[in-house]
Amino acid sequence: MLQERLLDPDALVAAILQDDSTGSVLMLAWMNRAALDATLSTRRVTLWSRSRNELWVKGESSGNFQEVVSMRYDCDGDAILIRVKSHGPACHTGATSCFHNEVE
Amino acid sequence: MLQERLLDPDALVAAILQDDSTGSVLMLAWMNRAALDATLSTRRVTLWSRSRNELWVKGESSGNFQEVVSMRYDCDGDAILIRVKSHGPACHTGATSCFHNEVE
Repeated sequence: MLQERLLDPDALVAAILQDDSTGSVLMLAWMNRAALDATLSTRRVTLWSRSRNELWVKGESSGNFQEVVSMRYDCDGDAILIRVKSHGPACHTGATSCFHNEVE
Repeated sequence: MLQERLLDPDALVAAILQDDSTGSVLMLAWMNRAALDATLSTRRVTLWSRSRNELWVKGESSGNFQEVVSMRYDCDGDAILIRVKSHGPACHTGATSCFHNEVE
């Protein structure tokens, strides 16, 4: 069902990155088919940047690559959970996880 | 930043549900401001159904409510990580988590 959704090259699925060793949820990002294919072939998380409209190898500039441990998709085929071996902070702020703001 | 985004009553943010005791990621769903307000006041996860166009108290029909333990939002304010005490399967298939399909 995931592959069906991604037959449309413009379709996006949500990608949740989770640290495989700590269980910490690191970030939510987006993938199109090209990003998924690149992730599967390189085993490094590759995403689709909606703001820059381009493929984005996570950690390409910082060196903090996210190495794929496992990938599972959900029951309606529009989200992927990627468990990763994390080689550094996932957040551009330097925080381990992008989810570091308490909802008041 | 989350609240700013949600000032538009039609704006949606992604909500990731994570089991607080096991660390398992249960599902990805959506919230608008009304869903967030209801979740904060009842401490039961309330979502926005994009297919039915209505608020949806998770577990309302099954009794498998998802009780809020903590809520954090991400650095760009478009996703919320909700750690929950889970009172039953999160997936409509009866699985604990919606993420039960291996990506080939």
